Amino acid sequence: MRVVVVGIGAVGGTIAAALSLAGVEVAGIARGAQLAAIRANGLHLRTPDGAHFAHFPCYADPAEAGLRPDDLVVLTVKSQDSAAALAQLRAAGMTDQPLFCAQNGVANEALAARVLPNVHGMTVMLPADYTTPGEVITYGGPRWGIFDLGRWPSGTDQADAALAEALNRANFAAFPSGEVMQSKYGKLLLNLHNIVDAAIGRGALFKKIQPLLTAEGEAVLRAAGIAWQDVGIDDPRRESLMRFAKVTGANRAGSSTLQSFARGAGSVETDFLNGEIVMLGAQHGVPTPVNGWFCRLADRMLREGIAPGAIDPTEVERALGL
Amino acid sequence: MRVVVVGIGAVGGTIAAALSLAGVEVAGIARGAQLAAIRANGLHLRTPDGAHFAHFPCYADPAEAGLRPDDLVVLTVKSQDSAAALAQLRAAGMTDQPLFCAQNGVANEALAARVLPNVHGMTVMLPADYTTPGEVITYGGPRWGIFDLGRWPSGTDQADAALAEALNRANFAAFPSGEVMQSKYGKLLLNLHNIVDAAIGRGALFKKIQPLLTAEGEAVLRAAGIAWQDVGIDDPRRESLMRFAKVTGANRAGSSTLQSFARGAGSVETDFLNGEIVMLGAQHGVPTPVNGWFCRLADRMLREGIAPGAIDPTEVERALGL
Repeated sequence: MRVVVVGIGAVGGTIAAALSLAGVEVAGIARGAQLAAIRANGLHLRTPDGAHFAHFPCYADPAEAGLRPDDLVVLTVKSQDSAAALAQLRAAGMTDQPLFCAQNGVANEALAARVLPNVHGMTVMLPADYTTPGEVITYGGPRWGIFDLGRWPSGTDQADAALAEALNRANFAAFPSGEVMQSKYGKLLLNLHNIVDAAIGRGALFKKIQPLLTAEGEAVLRAAGIAWQDVGIDDPRRESLMRFAKVTGANRAGSSTLQSFARGAGSVETDFLNGEIVMLGAQHGVPTPVNGWFCRLADRMLREGIAPGAIDPTEVERALGL
Repeated sequence: MRVVVVGIGAVGGTIAAALSLAGVEVAGIARGAQLAAIRANGLHLRTPDGAHFAHFPCYADPAEAGLRPDDLVVLTVKSQDSAAALAQLRAAGMTDQPLFCAQNGVANEALAARVLPNVHGMTVMLPADYTTPGEVITYGGPRWGIFDLGRWPSGTDQADAALAEALNRANFAAFPSGEVMQSKYGKLLLNLHNIVDAAIGRGALFKKIQPLLTAEGEAVLRAAGIAWQDVGIDDPRRESLMRFAKVTGANRAGSSTLQSFARGAGSVETDFLNGEIVMLGAQHGVPTPVNGWFCRLADRMLREGIAPGAIDPTEVERALGL
């Protein structure tokens, strides 16, 4: 068994480095400065319990990794990059190897299932940063992260058991789940706040907006008949397995959306997070003005090159009538 | 009212030319050789009742068209190009103008609803070819095409009535429908055969494969609880309004997928046609081996640059056990 991790950002980098350190064979697919840095020096994984250096082969394209029948493929690119990654995997000869969508949002599994027959969902609870090529930082401890994983749309199989076992050996806590999408919808509700963090930071206004986004999200999921599982701070697994912890010399950068803006990634995931709620709201007749407003804000921040945290809070208050 | 047609291929070109000839204000968004040809000489619309030349402004980007509050936007790009077109429309300042997804497949409406609030579906029954820049040919007569159109996910509004009225004046037959997606799912079942036409043409083997694809598609839609409306040759509107007719000096090129291969478009829509059935089959436990095989074939034809009609029928027979 080899684990091919497609997208070596904060999540993919932590997974690939940790598996590699635990003796699991890993191949990474990365690009640009990250690919060059890993090829030159390996990947530096900073954690609450110290720093580690992981060395694993890294490629620009899965075709270079030579896909094998016993590979498990873990997809960690942002949702807006899934179509391109899936095209690469298919061109590389991927057929019925299991594909784990270890991504925020809930649209990737159905997208993948159009072109690949063995699709799994994977919920990622992993407070990690990627801001410097060659380095990822996880702030989770004692376990570095928690995962739910299972077949799409439901059920579990041997691949889920095998990947969970490998992740558990690599200092994560992984749980095969027969209803993994319920856990991913729970994570979606948490991710609605990513753009707020990116726009105005985590001050008093953030705390005022949070319940508005959540209320819209929950109303939409209820109207759509979609069940979800709470995977936030009240999830009892967090207390025992993974709390936010200090990493020497590091400060959490913020949400993955904030990190995308900070890195100048050129795209953010908001349309697949808040936009998912907006779409389901339109489908089921539930108004979603706050999520809609933040979708348009993310688009404007991208197009006007607005830095994270640089949105004037009074503009937000006025627009939302707060 | 102005109609902005995004994508001036066979469908978009016929719609834009016909509306323009009927005195409706039209703006087209096109690219490459098609854009250059239309700018130089207008668009040549060949039909069973003769040839027409339409002259309307055409742009590379909707931002150049200067979107107006009273625009109706008709999206006719292939599904795989929707995300890029939607990003352009949003960047051009599109807000709550109605967007009509006049595209095959059923995934575009939900994609658009993530970023735009006023989404409509539009089923296209329009036997048209686009093989030469500056020219489109429709083989429909007496009306050049039939459309169902309505709000997504259901209902109709004034925009549907207004666009239908304009299309009816432009020698189409347009029907506002409160359940437009039922008609689009019916069209999806017809489009499952596009890739067969592209691979082996419309001979005896085509007729043998057709019912296999349809049976899988119908079984999947039934299992998913998705209603559909027959819009094929048994739709009574076809007999009275639009039959296949001769166009002097022209021979129908074939399905839109065949035309994509023939033009070297670099992508085809198969993952959103047969792939939609494969995805729904995986979701609802219905096997779809024939649709799955043709998805993989389309991908191989693209990557290996195989010309339309160049697949060996005996390979198809062997693979499908026929």
